[in-house]
Amino acid sequence: MIYQGKNVTINEPSCIGKNVILEDDVYIDAGVIIRDNVHIKQGSYIGSQSILGEYTADLLKNRKADNPILVIGEEAVIRSQCIIYGGTEIGEACQTGHGAVIREHNKLGHHVRIGTHCEIQHNCRIGNYVCLHSKVFLGEETELEDFVWLFPGVTVTNDPTPPSNTIDKVRICKFASVGARAVLMPGITVGNGSLIGAGSVVTKDVSEGMVVLGNPARVTGQTVDIKNKKTGEKAYPWPCYFNRNMPWEGQNYDEWIKCNNR
Amino acid sequence: MIYQGKNVTINEPSCIGKNVILEDDVYIDAGVIIRDNVHIKQGSYIGSQSILGEYTADLLKNRKADNPILVIGEEAVIRSQCIIYGGTEIGEACQTGHGAVIREHNKLGHHVRIGTHCEIQHNCRIGNYVCLHSKVFLGEETELEDFVWLFPGVTVTNDPTPPSNTIDKVRICKFASVGARAVLMPGITVGNGSLIGAGSVVTKDVSEGMVVLGNPARVTGQTVDIKNKKTGEKAYPWPCYFNRNMPWEGQNYDEWIKCNNR
Amino acid sequence: MIYQGKNVTINEPSCIGKNVILEDDVYIDAGVIIRDNVHIKQGSYIGSQSILGEYTADLLKNRKADNPILVIGEEAVIRSQCIIYGGTEIGEACQTGHGAVIREHNKLGHHVRIGTHCEIQHNCRIGNYVCLHSKVFLGEETELEDFVWLFPGVTVTNDPTPPSNTIDKVRICKFASVGARAVLMPGITVGNGSLIGAGSVVTKDVSEGMVVLGNPARVTGQTVDIKNKKTGEKAYPWPCYFNRNMPWEGQNYDEWIKCNNR
Repeated sequence: MIYQGKNVTINEPSCIGKNVILEDDVYIDAGVIIRDNVHIKQGSYIGSQSILGEYTADLLKNRKADNPILVIGEEAVIRSQCIIYGGTEIGEACQTGHGAVIREHNKLGHHVRIGTHCEIQHNCRIGNYVCLHSKVFLGEETELEDFVWLFPGVTVTNDPTPPSNTIDKVRICKFASVGARAVLMPGITVGNGSLIGAGSVVTKDVSEGMVVLGNPARVTGQTVDIKNKKTGEKAYPWPCYFNRNMPWEGQNYDEWIKCNNR
Repeated sequence: MIYQGKNVTINEPSCIGKNVILEDDVYIDAGVIIRDNVHIKQGSYIGSQSILGEYTADLLKNRKADNPILVIGEEAVIRSQCIIYGGTEIGEACQTGHGAVIREHNKLGHHVRIGTHCEIQHNCRIGNYVCLHSKVFLGEETELEDFVWLFPGVTVTNDPTPPSNTIDKVRICKFASVGARAVLMPGITVGNGSLIGAGSVVTKDVSEGMVVLGNPARVTGQTVDIKNKKTGEKAYPWPCYFNRNMPWEGQNYDEWIKCNNR
Repeated sequence: MIYQGKNVTINEPSCIGKNVILEDDVYIDAGVIIRDNVHIKQGSYIGSQSILGEYTADLLKNRKADNPILVIGEEAVIRSQCIIYGGTEIGEACQTGHGAVIREHNKLGHHVRIGTHCEIQHNCRIGNYVCLHSKVFLGEETELEDFVWLFPGVTVTNDPTPPSNTIDKVRICKFASVGARAVLMPGITVGNGSLIGAGSVVTKDVSEGMVVLGNPARVTGQTVDIKNKKTGEKAYPWPCYFNRNMPWEGQNYDEWIKCNNR
C-alpha cells in the first residue's frame, strides 16, 4: 500500500499489493485480493472475495512486469466475487452484481451498472449510465453509448468468420434497449432509442427508434407506438416514463433536458 | 455466533457473523463467509468460499441496519462459491451447484435444486422439488410451482417494456419442463405438464400438456404423444417414467399418488 | 502434501490437502483450496480462489471416501475462481478463464482453452486444441474432437425428453466452429469443418463443411464459399487463415500438415 486515506476499513483476511491507493472512506470486505497498482477512490465498497487489478496474460507470462493501473471511481459498489483487471478505468458511482469479470483496457463512464455473471472483454468503451443486467457478454472493442440497457444474457459478438483475426465491433447508440438473450452479430450498429426483442438474433443495423424481433430479427414497428398494456400510456422513449437511478430521478426527463441545455 | 449445536465443523479460514445459528452436524468448509442473522439447520453442508446472508442494497447504504434473516433448511448441500442473501428462506434438502446467486426475500420449498451459475432475483416463489439446471436466470417475482424443471440457460423475464417500473411476472405450473436456453417473455403462464423446446422464445401462455417450439414458440403437439426413440415407450407425463431424486423414487408415480391420496 | 518440487510458490492464505503433488515451478496464488489427491504438473499456475479436486456428490455423502485423483498437465494456466473436480484429467498447456467449473471424470487433451463461466459436466471427452469461449455449457458425455471451437454461450444438451434417464450425447468433429449462443440438440453430430451460425438451434446432424443457420438451423451454404468482407479472401477452412495459439502458429497450415505427415 502506498496511501491510505481517513476512515478506511480493511476486513481480514485480505491481500493488498504494492502501490495501492485507498482513498477516504473506502471499505474492503473480507477475503478481497488487491494486486499491485490499484487506485480506489473515495467512499467505494469492495465486496468479499473480489479480485482487483487481476493479472493480464502478459503479466502471467512475465511476473516481474508492471501491472497496468486499475482505477475505480468514487462511491463504487463492487459486489462480492467480482474480478476486475489492471489497465481498466471505471468512473464514479459504478455498481456491480456478483461474479462479474471486467478485463483489461476497458473504459467505463460514470454511474454504470454491471450485473451478476457479466463479462466484459478487453478494449470496450462504455458510456455513462449504461446498465448491463445479469449474464451479459461483451466481446472486445464493443462500444456502448450513454444510457444503453442490455437485459439478461445479451451476447455481443465481434468475429465475422469465427475463428479469425478480424474484429468487427458492435456499436450501440444512446437509449437503445436490448431484450434478454438477444445476440448481436459482428459489425452491426444499433440506432438511438431502438428496442430489440428478447431472444432476437440481430444480423443487420437497426435504425433509430425502431423495434426489431426474431431470428433473424426483422423490423416490426417503432418504439413510439408501444404502449404499457396496463395503463394504456406510451412506454417509449423510455426516459420519459422511467427515472429510477437516472440523472433525472425525481423530476421528469423533459425538465432535466431543459436544465441541462441538451 | 449465538448457538452452535453438536458435532458442528467450521474449517479455517472462515468468517462467522453475529446472531448465527448452526444446528447439529452442520459442516462449514474452508473460506466461507457468514454475515449476521443466518440460521443453518441440522446436517447442512456449506461449501468453500460461499457467502451466506449477503448484504442487500439497503444494508450497503446503511451498514448499521439489521441484516434480514436467512434460513437454510435441514440437510442442505450448498456447493462452493454460492452467494445467498439475507431475507431468504430455503426449505429442507436444498442442493445447489457452484457460484449460484440467490437474492433476498425469496422463498424456496423443500428438495429444490439450483444449478451452477444460476441467479434467482428477489421476491420469487419456488415450490417443492423444483429443479433449475445450470445458468438459469429468474427475474424478480417469478413463480414456479412444484416439480417444475428448467434446463440450462433458461431465462425468465418480467419487464414488458424494458426498461420500466412494470413487473409482469411469469408463472410456471406443476410438472412443466422448459428446454435449454428458452426465453420466457413477461407475464406468461406455462401450463401444467407442458414442454417448451430448447432455444424457444415463448411469447404467449402455454396450455396444459402442450408442446411448444421455436422463435416465436408455436404449438407443435401434445406431450402425451412424445415417445422415447430408443425404447418406443411414451416419455410423458414424465413423472411416470422418471423418478431420480423425486419423492416417488424407488416406486412408480401411480403408486405414490395412491399412497399420498392425491 | 506428499511431494513438492523445486521452486514451488504457495501464497497465503491457501489450504492444501493430503496426497497432493506439486511439481517443479508450480505457482499457487493466494486463496486457493486444493483437496486431497491432486497432482499438478510442472510449471502450472493456479489462480487465486480456485478450488482443485472439488468433492463429487459421492464424497459429500461419504466424507471418508477417497477423492478420485485430479491431474493437471504441465504449464497450465488455471485462472482465478475456477473449480475443477477430482477424477478429471487435463492435458498439457490448458488455459482457463475465471469461474469455470469442470466436473468429475472428464478427459481433456492438451492445449485446451476453457473460457470464463464455462461449465463442463461429467464424463466429457475433449480433444487437443479445443477452444471453449466464455459461458459455454457442455452436458455430460459430450464429445469434442481436436480443434473444435465453441463461441460464447454455446449450449450442448443431452436429454431428448427432459427430464429423463436417457443420455443422447452430442459429438462435434474436428475443426467445426459453433457461433455464439447456439444450442445443440441431443444426439446430433456436427461434421468436420462445418460452421453453425450464432443464435442457431441445431436439431439435425450437420454434414462436413456445411454452414447452418437459424431456429431451427437450416443449411445455407458451404464454408468454402465464405469470404472475409474486408479482404475478399476466403475465410475457411479456417486453419488456412488463422494460426494464433495453434500448433502451426508461425507457419502456414499446409506446411504444418506436410511436416506432420498428416
